[in-house]
Parts: sequence; C-alpha cells; structure tokens
Amino acid sequence: MMSRPVAGVRNKTVIVTLPGSPKGAKENLQAIIKTLPHACLQAAGMDSRTLHAGGVKKLEADAGIASSAGNHTHAHGHDHSHTHGHDHSHGHGHGHGHGHGHRNLVRHTAPSANPMSNDPSLGPSRRNRESPYPMLSVDDALQKIRENVPCPQTCTSKVRISLCGQVLAEDVAAQENVPAFRASIVDGYAVVVPKDGNMKGVFPVVSVSHAAPGEAKPLKEGEIARITTGAPLPPGATSVIMVEDTVLKTLTEDGKEEKEVEILADNVSEGENIREVGSDIKAGSIVLRKGEQISAVGGEIGMLASVGAAEVKTYLQPTVGILSTGDEIVPHDRPGDLRLGEVRDTNRLALMSAVMEQGYDVIDLGIAADKSGTLEQTLRDAFSSVDVVITSGGVSMGELDLLKPTIERALGGTIHFGRVAMKPGKPTTFATVPVKDSAGERVPKVIFGLPGNPASALVTFHLFVLPALHQMAGIEPAGLTKAPVLLGHDFSLDKSRPEYHRAIVTVNSDGQLVATSTGVQRSSRVGSLKGANCLLCLPSGTEGLKKGAKVDALFMGQVRSEFRL
Amino acid sequence: MMSRPVAGVRNKTVIVTLPGSPKGAKENLQAIIKTLPHACLQAAGMDSRTLHAGGVKKLEADAGIASSAGNHTHAHGHDHSHTHGHDHSHGHGHGHGHGHGHRNLVRHTAPSANPMSNDPSLGPSRRNRESPYPMLSVDDALQKIRENVPCPQTCTSKVRISLCGQVLAEDVAAQENVPAFRASIVDGYAVVVPKDGNMKGVFPVVSVSHAAPGEAKPLKEGEIARITTGAPLPPGATSVIMVEDTVLKTLTEDGKEEKEVEILADNVSEGENIREVGSDIKAGSIVLRKGEQISAVGGEIGMLASVGAAEVKTYLQPTVGILSTGDEIVPHDRPGDLRLGEVRDTNRLALMSAVMEQGYDVIDLGIAADKSGTLEQTLRDAFSSVDVVITSGGVSMGELDLLKPTIERALGGTIHFGRVAMKPGKPTTFATVPVKDSAGERVPKVIFGLPGNPASALVTFHLFVLPALHQMAGIEPAGLTKAPVLLGHDFSLDKSRPEYHRAIVTVNSDGQLVATSTGVQRSSRVGSLKGANCLLCLPSGTEGLKKGAKVDALFMGQVRSEFRL
Repeated sequence: MMSRPVAGVRNKTVIVTLPGSPKGAKENLQAIIKTLPHACLQAAGMDSRTLHAGGVKKLEADAGIASSAGNHTHAHGHDHSHTHGHDHSHGHGHGHGHGHGHRNLVRHTAPSANPMSNDPSLGPSRRNRESPYPMLSVDDALQKIRENVPCPQTCTSKVRISLCGQVLAEDVAAQENVPAFRASIVDGYAVVVPKDGNMKGVFPVVSVSHAAPGEAKPLKEGEIARITTGAPLPPGATSVIMVEDTVLKTLTEDGKEEKEVEILADNVSEGENIREVGSDIKAGSIVLRKGEQISAVGGEIGMLASVGAAEVKTYLQPTVGILSTGDEIVPHDRPGDLRLGEVRDTNRLALMSAVMEQGYDVIDLGIAADKSGTLEQTLRDAFSSVDVVITSGGVSMGELDLLKPTIERALGGTIHFGRVAMKPGKPTTFATVPVKDSAGERVPKVIFGLPGNPASALVTFHLFVLPALHQMAGIEPAGLTKAPVLLGHDFSLDKSRPEYHRAIVTVNSDGQLVATSTGVQRSSRVGSLKGANCLLCLPSGTEGLKKGAKVDALFMGQVRSEFRL
Repeated sequence: MMSRPVAGVRNKTVIVTLPGSPKGAKENLQAIIKTLPHACLQAAGMDSRTLHAGGVKKLEADAGIASSAGNHTHAHGHDHSHTHGHDHSHGHGHGHGHGHGHRNLVRHTAPSANPMSNDPSLGPSRRNRESPYPMLSVDDALQKIRENVPCPQTCTSKVRISLCGQVLAEDVAAQENVPAFRASIVDGYAVVVPKDGNMKGVFPVVSVSHAAPGEAKPLKEGEIARITTGAPLPPGATSVIMVEDTVLKTLTEDGKEEKEVEILADNVSEGENIREVGSDIKAGSIVLRKGEQISAVGGEIGMLASVGAAEVKTYLQPTVGILSTGDEIVPHDRPGDLRLGEVRDTNRLALMSAVMEQGYDVIDLGIAADKSGTLEQTLRDAFSSVDVVITSGGVSMGELDLLKPTIERALGGTIHFGRVAMKPGKPTTFATVPVKDSAGERVPKVIFGLPGNPASALVTFHLFVLPALHQMAGIEPAGLTKAPVLLGHDFSLDKSRPEYHRAIVTVNSDGQLVATSTGVQRSSRVGSLKGANCLLCLPSGTEGLKKGAKVDALFMGQVRSEFRL
C-alpha cells in the first residue's frame, strides 16, 4: 500500500494513474472502481449540488459501498472521501481540500451552521478552518499502521546479551545433545549396581572423575569412582551414590587420597543420579521457533547458549528518532525562569524513555522551531539514520502546525491518518515518506506526529507507535497486551470519543485483575501517567461504567500486587 | 545490620565486642543477650553434653527464645546456632562446624545411619561429607539477605533517560506552575466574552498570539486575537473560540492577513478553552515522593521534566559482575564439538541478560577455573569495580567446589547461608565480603553463589539476587511482585521441598490470572524458563494441587493474554 497514484480531471476526462506493479495497480483500481461512475458524472459536467443532494448514504448506496463498521463517531467525512474515488494516500490535502463533513467536534456551532470556509481564492491566509483529514476510529487507524509500516528485515545476530528483545527469523535446532555425555547430578561415587540393588559395603576408590574434560577410566562391579556434580560417568558405571550416603573408611599410604569408602545405600536403581545424553535437549531438535522473542527472563538466550548457537537470524530492530516541535518549547533543564509563553519540553524525555524501555535504539533529534524549512531539514537529516521519527506538537489546526504540510509538500510523503476519534490524542498523525537508502533504493520511513500535550503523546505512543515498532521488529501480535480487567470504582465516560484512561491494575486476593484510575485525565497532565501500568479502553457513552464492570485494558507495565516477598 | 561483632572465650571469660555506634551496640547486644547465661555456663566449664541434653527446645525455653515461625524443614540447625549466641555472621563456619542436624536431604540413608564424618584428623582428604551450612527456609534466607545487604547510597542524578529505573531519595517539588501562563487549549480566537455569552458576529482581528514566547497585547471587548494551541492569552481575554466555530470574512489590504472573522458561537462561558496557571501542577507542590521509582512508561520522568527539575537525589544502582566457574565450562560460542565432559556456559549469558533487563550495569567476569587462587584473584579484581558478584557453579559438595572456602578463608567473608530448602536451588549461597574502597573504608560487597544448573541459577537469581539488588537500589518492596493466581491444570508437588515452578500466567476472559506449567522442571533444563513469566510458589506436600487451586506466583515478566490489539 505504499503506492501513490495520482488522479485528476482534464477537460471532461477522468485521469487515474495506477502504479506500475500489477499487484499495486490491481489494489488501487479496486479501491476506486466503485466510485468511478460518480466521478465520471461529475467530470462530464453534472451539477455537483444536484449530484450530492441525496447525501452520503445515497451516494454510498449507489456506489455499492457499505459504511465502514466500527466505532467512527466521524465516519461521514471518511466515507465521503471514498465516494470521490480517492483516499488520503492520494495526497489531495494540500491545505485546501474537503473541509466539509468533519464537523462532529465538541464545540459551539452545529456543523450545519458553518459555511464552507476553505476557498483557495481567499488569498494568502488560506489555511483550513476544518481539518481536511478524516476522523478514523482507533481500529481503522491501527489497520492503516498495519498496512503501511514496512515489513521486518532480517539480519544475522551474534548470541550475546544484545539479542534480548529481538525476534528469531528462523527456527533454531540444537547442534548437539544436552548433556553431551552421561553426567552425574550429585557429588559422590560412581558405582556399578549389583542385581539386588544393595550397595551397602566398603569399596575401593579406583579413580576420580571431575567435572573437567578428559578421558574416564572404565569401572567394574565392586569398584567405585569419586565423581563431582556434572562430571562424566566412567564407562561401565550404572549409578551415582551421593557423598552424604557414604563414610570415608581408609586413606592411601601417603594420606592424601581416599582408599576405601563405605556406602550406606541399598535399593539402588540403575541410572540413579545420572543425566542421560540428550535428556535435556536432543541434537537436531528445534529449541526455538521463528517468531519467538528472546526475553530477558533468560530462558531463550540460555537455550541458545546451551546448544552452542553462536549466531542466529533475527529481525532488525527499528531505530527511532524523537523530535519535539514548537518555538515555545525549551529544554526541560534550561536554567532560569520561563518567559511568557515558554513551556518545558516534557515529551522528548518521556518518549525517549518509553522507546528505550522497549529495547530500541533511540536518537535525540532535539527541538525543531516552527519554520517549515527547519522542520524539513531536520526530518531529512533524521531519515539518514533512523527508521521511525516520532514528533510531538505541531499537529493541531494552528497556522504554525507545519508537520502535515511538510510531510506532504516538502517530503513527498503520504499521510495515512491525521485525526483519530479518541481521547486523548485526537490529532495523532501517521505518515510514511519515501527516502533513498545508501543503495539508492527508495524505502519507506515512518513518521508519527503525536499531539503536544504530554499525556496525549504518551498514550498515543503506546497505542499507535508501539504496534508499528513491533511490526518492524517482527513481534507478533504487535502492540500492548490487551486483556479484560474489572473496574475498581465507577468510571464516567466521554460522550463522543472512546477514552484511553490511565489506570493501575492490581491483582486482588482472588487472583483477579482490578483497575483504578490515576486521577484527573486532562491531556496536558502528564501526572495521569504517573504510576500507571495500563490504559483502560473505555467506550464512549452517556452513562458511566459501574464498579465491577469488565473492561479491556492495555498493559504498559507489570501488574501490581499488595503482596510482595 | 552490617556490623560484625566478634565473640570468643578467653580462659573462663566470655568476650563480646560490640560496634562503636550506640545503635549498633544496642542492636547487637539485644540479639545475643538472652543466650549469654548459656554461654557463661559453658565458659565456666559446665559439661557441654549435659548442658545440651534437653535438646534445642529446652535451651530455647530456658533462654526465652521462641522457635522461628515459617517453613523450615531444617530449622533445627538454624536454631541451634542461635542457642549458642551467634549466627553465621560470626564466621564460625570454616568448613568444620555444625555438621549435625542438617540431614533431611533426599537420599538413601536415614540421617541416623550416617556417623559423624567430619574429623579434621583424617588428613588431606578432610572435605565435609555433609554440608556444614544449615538448611534455611526460603523466608529465612530472604531475611538474611534483608539484614546483610548494604543500605542504599544516595547520589545526584541528572534528569535524563538514564534516570529510568532509579528510585528517588528525596521528595521533588515543582519549582514553577504548569502551565506557567494562561494558555489556549485550541487553535482559534481569544475573545472578551460579553455578559450574555453571545459571541455571534463579525470581529476585527487585532493581534496574533502564537505558541511562542513574547509579550501579548491586551484585548478589549469587541476585539479578537488569533491564537494557537498552547499560546498565552492576551491580557483581558476571557475565553477562546475554536477556529472551527469561525469563518474568515475579510482580509487586510495586502491580502496577507485576516482583517475580520465571523464567530458563530453563543452561550460562551468565561474561561472556556483555557488552561489556567498552575491548573496541572501548582508551584511548590510535591510531584514525586522519596521512594518512588522512575518508570519507563514515562509518567514520572515526564513529571520531572515538566516542572523543570534538572537534577534529583536518587539511590545509587548496584553494579553487578557475572562469573561462571568450573574447569568443564566453555564459552557458549566456542567453535567445534565439545570434548568429553565439556559443557557450554549458559548461565553467564542468561544471568547477564536478566541483570541488564533490570537496568543495572553488568560486567562480564568470564569463566574461572577450579583453582582457589584463580577464583580468589578473580573475586578480588571484581570487587574493585562491582558491588555484587553473581557466580554460578562450584557450590555443591564436590572437592572442587571452592566458592565457600574461598569466601571464608581467603577473602575473610561471611557466608550468611549456604543451603536453602527449595527446588530448584538448594545449594544457593549468599555471602558478604569486606573490601576497602578507594577512601580506605571497609565496605561490604555481596556475593551470590548460585547453583550451576541453568534453571536453578535463573530461579535463584529471581528469587534471591533480585531482592538484594532492589534493596541496594532503594526499591521497596524489594523483589518480584507476588500475587495469587489460579492453576490452569493439576500440579504435582515435591515431597520435601517447596518448588518454584516455572509457569506462564495468562489473563482469561474474566480478568482472572491462570497459570500453566512450562513443562519438565528439571534443574538442568533451561527450557523450563523458555516463555516463563512467573515462578509458582508450590508448597511441599505428598498430594498434588488440583486445577483451579489458588497459588502465589512471582511475576518475572508481563502477564499474557490471548487478546491483543
């Protein structure tokens, strides 16, 4: 879906340019074909007002396009763009498109009271007074991310601690047995067990087998060999008796070695206290599968080390650049008082921390001033070293909100969504930009334009950016773990938008997950993230949810408990 | 509790040296005072056999010491040391103490069948045939760790991403209001709302307030000022109207600026769309408390950045060295086949990963050969750069298990425990060693001697080492989060020892935590950690636990779910 078709009208002819690849051409044509009759009617000169008189529902019905299912509170504008036979990947925005149909915001005027305001003939002050970007549901936005984020690339990684967090791009087979030899699991004496299993008696110590490489001397019935934990059994030995079950009887003449040892055990079975060859891992067996992530708990990397894997094929992890934007933003640690209008940069540090915690390399791109040339150059420079840029700020409706124009006009990028029906985080923007790599190939780089309010930036990072990073790193399923929890108290709901409510999930004494709010959820209030380990997925609605109601939670951190060691 | 009193008997006098500090002296004296009469009787020459004839219970009753509560399967030896007025911090072990009373191991002979074997007169082959270390319960072992691990040290840290994971050693107050000025929360027009709240009409745009520092011109009723999200309100303005609620009417003569804008809103309230000064955070208020940990979710570090904190007092994080021991151990990635007896080093990589995941600096100490001089020098070198050494291997009953002798005899350290009643991990060893720091002060360094079997090493790391690291880093409560979960299937139990069963905790559709086993739990099988996100705390017992039973789990990783975005 990285193709960028161009569509337009020349005289009375509708011109659609499809991508060169058969697959791309087919997909793009499928996306627009039902709306072509409508476009042709318009191009042929039919009066637009008459044509649109039946409203979107009629147009959709005529074209055979069902309204998208899901949680759109603002589906109208979104669908409307479809009925014109192009979506926003066509780059039609350019600051003068589709102002109508996106008016269901929380505000004073009813949408119908607001005339069309987006006439380019108005001169230099031609900014949109309505966002030209359709308001997507969260699910639709996530779908756009899935479709447009590049697939994971593979690489060869050494089996080192830096492997933690990475995902295997191949099955890994054991190249040898674990253990590779018959080994004692205790310190004691290797013995040849007689048929009756009675080992009681005094035996000569004929050899010593340490947990060290070397050849072991064969053992006969009636002889014993001292052996340490993990050491190879002498050939012929059938069991090991723990040292605790023995008594030292006599020493060698020089007094330096054990000569005879008394064994106190009867009912000894063959194979006792022995790890057989390959009993933990058989040579050739698959120890880890493609798609498995190497956790830091240690089991996976331990498994790789134990079978002698020195290198494995993994998915490349994306490198992420973090940029704050806005003339008003100053470094958080700038000495001295703030001047009027200045705001300390909260997002850069918070987002860098969140990215680093996920194990990805992060590059600090600083603070970009509100000048389109500056932002453009910063992004161009960034893309030479990072795969993903996360910006915050500059995505509202202000005349200095330059991110979208810079992506579309200066960088030739595609904005896949620019508004999402959610709280907080409505102006969240996701785009891709084609950038030539060192081999001269155009590869897609990813930009997330997050809102400037700190709570919004962190929530949308976890909700949208993380799935993109996971997808690029080969983690499946991508994104935060989602699971139901019970509400620990009543929660009120937002009337029009689903809310991602910062909360603390605790395990109660029944092993049940219970969520409590972190308090005031204002999008500017980064304190709503303090202590939070989850985002509660609250639906929109007029009535609240009662204590005990079941709600999905997205887990950002470890669950809590009142109990610890 | 790091004081190291010395006690002894000279002629018939009991000599106890207490620490110099009044607090330390008091605590130490309290610890031994009830046992002093008993010690005095012995010192005065009373026959030890007669004195001890009544057994430990009688001695305890005489001294007024209650038996420790809890899960001791081997409480006898432990309590016995108490009745002598010293515990293992007195360094009495030295390889020839207290062999009796610690025989409840899983083995062939009943303890009574095994005569005392620990006579030093037997010559060079004088190793113990029973461990001289009392078998502690897990709870008692954790208590020893709490008592003997150094208290956290404070330092000053810059507010950077490296702060993540650290714990605050002071309350942090906001040095300024957030926001620091009255700010617009939307893009639109600052207005002076008339008494009736009706703003409908066409107004002159008299100024522009960007989200950039500067002086704002005062606004009068009947005038409006264009304003961007986050920008300071002009003095006199009372509300902000969203741009979506407006229509551009006329331009300035040069066509470059808005001259008049129509506002479509009525019922406008004062303060609408405005963030008041300090409404998110008030200057002087405490934003984070001493003891709070800076998480990577971003809320805490964002909070610090937003209030302009450049530096904060935190607790120093311990640096950890990881050492594997054993002549048989080869680097996991050594090319070529294994020779007889060789084993690939699994623990070093797995433990380094686990430490790094916790955010602590980790140093690779390599593999130490089974020569006491080598081990001693490796440990001495390590303590010049690390606070904690974690070794694996060399803690069993073998003649080459040199860790304990090296700690006690060569390094002058104290072994606080050398055996724990648990599965896996029985030989887990915890010690402290006094080391001169750069200022010439003797400071305690911590050693954990973990078992060589990979599953044992990882389980005991999470169970014992982590609480120690947390304590040093100021994290409270220390150690893994513990909470009840339901068993997803039947589990069998170990007859004599509590088991820390590697399992996967999943949230079911009711928001309930359910645990399933990772499979065969053999201590050599690192695969039992693969995919594990918890340790189930299974009690010892002869009957198993049924599906649905409630059991405590220690959470090593994020809970799982069948559901994701």
